[in-house]
Amino acid sequence: MDEGYILSVPKKGYYVSNIDVYHNINIVQHEGTLLTEHINDLKIDFSPSDIDHKAFPYKTWRNLFKSCFNEFDHSILKRTTAQGNMGLRRELVSFLHSSRGVNCEERQIVIGAGTESSLRTISLILGNKTPIALENPVYRKAYRTFEHMGHEILPIPIDNKGIEIEPLKDHSNVAVYVTPSHQFPLGVSMPIGRRIELLNFANKADGRFIIEDDYDSEFRYIRKPLPSLQSIDQNGKVIYVGTFSTSIAPSIRMSYMILPLMLLKVYNKLFSEFGSEVSILEQKIIEKFIAEGSYERHLNRMRKLYKDKRAHFIKELSIFGDRIKVVGESAGNHLLINLITENSERQMCSAAIENGVKVYPISDYFIGEVISKYENTFLLGFGALSKNEIEEGVKLLYKAWVLK
Amino acid sequence: MDEGYILSVPKKGYYVSNIDVYHNINIVQHEGTLLTEHINDLKIDFSPSDIDHKAFPYKTWRNLFKSCFNEFDHSILKRTTAQGNMGLRRELVSFLHSSRGVNCEERQIVIGAGTESSLRTISLILGNKTPIALENPVYRKAYRTFEHMGHEILPIPIDNKGIEIEPLKDHSNVAVYVTPSHQFPLGVSMPIGRRIELLNFANKADGRFIIEDDYDSEFRYIRKPLPSLQSIDQNGKVIYVGTFSTSIAPSIRMSYMILPLMLLKVYNKLFSEFGSEVSILEQKIIEKFIAEGSYERHLNRMRKLYKDKRAHFIKELSIFGDRIKVVGESAGNHLLINLITENSERQMCSAAIENGVKVYPISDYFIGEVISKYENTFLLGFGALSKNEIEEGVKLLYKAWVLK
Repeated sequence: MDEGYILSVPKKGYYVSNIDVYHNINIVQHEGTLLTEHINDLKIDFSPSDIDHKAFPYKTWRNLFKSCFNEFDHSILKRTTAQGNMGLRRELVSFLHSSRGVNCEERQIVIGAGTESSLRTISLILGNKTPIALENPVYRKAYRTFEHMGHEILPIPIDNKGIEIEPLKDHSNVAVYVTPSHQFPLGVSMPIGRRIELLNFANKADGRFIIEDDYDSEFRYIRKPLPSLQSIDQNGKVIYVGTFSTSIAPSIRMSYMILPLMLLKVYNKLFSEFGSEVSILEQKIIEKFIAEGSYERHLNRMRKLYKDKRAHFIKELSIFGDRIKVVGESAGNHLLINLITENSERQMCSAAIENGVKVYPISDYFIGEVISKYENTFLLGFGALSKNEIEEGVKLLYKAWVLK
Repeated sequence: MDEGYILSVPKKGYYVSNIDVYHNINIVQHEGTLLTEHINDLKIDFSPSDIDHKAFPYKTWRNLFKSCFNEFDHSILKRTTAQGNMGLRRELVSFLHSSRGVNCEERQIVIGAGTESSLRTISLILGNKTPIALENPVYRKAYRTFEHMGHEILPIPIDNKGIEIEPLKDHSNVAVYVTPSHQFPLGVSMPIGRRIELLNFANKADGRFIIEDDYDSEFRYIRKPLPSLQSIDQNGKVIYVGTFSTSIAPSIRMSYMILPLMLLKVYNKLFSEFGSEVSILEQKIIEKFIAEGSYERHLNRMRKLYKDKRAHFIKELSIFGDRIKVVGESAGNHLLINLITENSERQMCSAAIENGVKVYPISDYFIGEVISKYENTFLLGFGALSKNEIEEGVKLLYKAWVLK
């Protein structure tokens, strides 16, 4: 009776319920395609998003867990507001101020479950009637995220100073997504003139905003990074986005964004009823990691490590002679190489794979056709590779591309 | 020169760059409203979403962290596919099969950063041209999530069997969001007849789907829960959603959903380039928590604990005599009480607050006007409260509502 199979009628008894016959419509369910699995005989993967796993501060992390996870702090079991732990936001205010010149208060910071999650939140704040201007080539997940959310996408070319402003001029309602520190994937760093030009562009209409993805500003090897757009902005035009994916580990799904006060108002209206989407314990751990100074020490260590690897990588690549040109700034944990060849990009990728090496063609990052000057350009990440592996990878590539 | 302030012209020298003047447009930045802070002199908070913090398996969790977090397993630092860790998905397949009759394969499971995050993914899969039918009253965050994503919302009344089917009949393209185990917030359990009726409704048109949020099926005290809609469905019409928020802790931002194969195809198309949005380490910890049988032991323990608290709560409430009626099933970690009074709901909430008690009025969960029979109905959560606190809370309520 509890489950509804029979009915009890007072003073009469129990009756069988009148239940519909369940119709099995015998749909042939179309199978979802399986995501491609790792290629088994891959020897070297020049993945641009991997980090050095051996250099992870395991011991520090274990201690942080121990000190953050305890019976007497019930806050580790509770939700927080949608914006995330106040403590972590407080640490970010001072850390981002000293490292990136960012000016903000705790209440402007929103902790997100990774860059894509933060971009989705930005999309909800701006509304999908706002077209999104993207650098082309572009950080692909940003492109796909805004596309999913239903925005009109405006692919904008990049010159040697970063995104071009001219093609944007007609749009009075637009959000421009840029990676000024180290354009992904071309590696261009936006000079001060273009930064001001871009900010002035935004200042000229109420509906113009800039989304500044400062994704790997931590890893710059030759000189101090330029101040962020957010630090120059005086008019609440820049939404600043950062992540711990490359600076700590890609498995820690945590990003942060800084909202101008005007957009914070919209955010609060949309999200005041929600909770944070990021593990509270990991927020606490990272708060402490920053507060203790361990994050800065870790970054300094990793910067040195990646710088050495990068130099070693470029030295190894010299066996290619004039056949290869290294493109972009001295930053991040991947190189961009331009290969002189008469074969197609696809052929070169296949040749590499046949020799057990995976490289990442730049065409994957273009919206539409590849501009001819970037044909046969490849991203080669070295974050996860040891010097020996870099050597092996370069030898295999030389075998694949030159010796054949 | 690196930063773009000066230019070098070969054989001529250095020139100052032509940089725009930065325009400060002196916008008065409107302040975002601050989220309401906790009321300081609150003695008892009958929050419906809190859990018993003292009963959390701290020791087990510490051991799980130790065994999952180690230098030799680099996978704890890497991203996984958007669907989440294969190991956790594997454990969920068998756990959900035995506990909820759910039939699925690993590849149909998607791990999400909480129920709202999963619902957002579902929204992207279905597209926001699909209207969403919601139970009214409704789980508010679900309502807000679908509203944010731009769906047309169809609020559907609930009778004593759950959501009514009749008002849905004209819609051939609709996703019906339901909580059949224990309707939130009314506590109605959907009997088998209505379940079949709802499934048959979905079977009659290609564009009809059911989103089954099985949110606290774990905590049912009188009898075994009815099988999930997903377990009866033979036609790939049900998207099943669950969460660890109440069963483990709200701070663990982790949910899961099971996609019918047809929708899995769409999901893969949309998300194959993305990574999981949930901490990989916590996914590993929960995988092991389930695999070791600790999750089931924890659930059994919590079920007993909440059942006792609930019985105690109802006993204490008897001092109200006929003034109070307890509504809904014997499930979950909150009660629904209907209070006979001539005052308004708002007045009763204020009276409670003045006496240091927070209760949650059902009007907050209605889309539009409250149906008259639910006036002066309140949610009283007891998850986080000890028996003494429940006693104190009831006494304070009695003082606020009866003695005055």
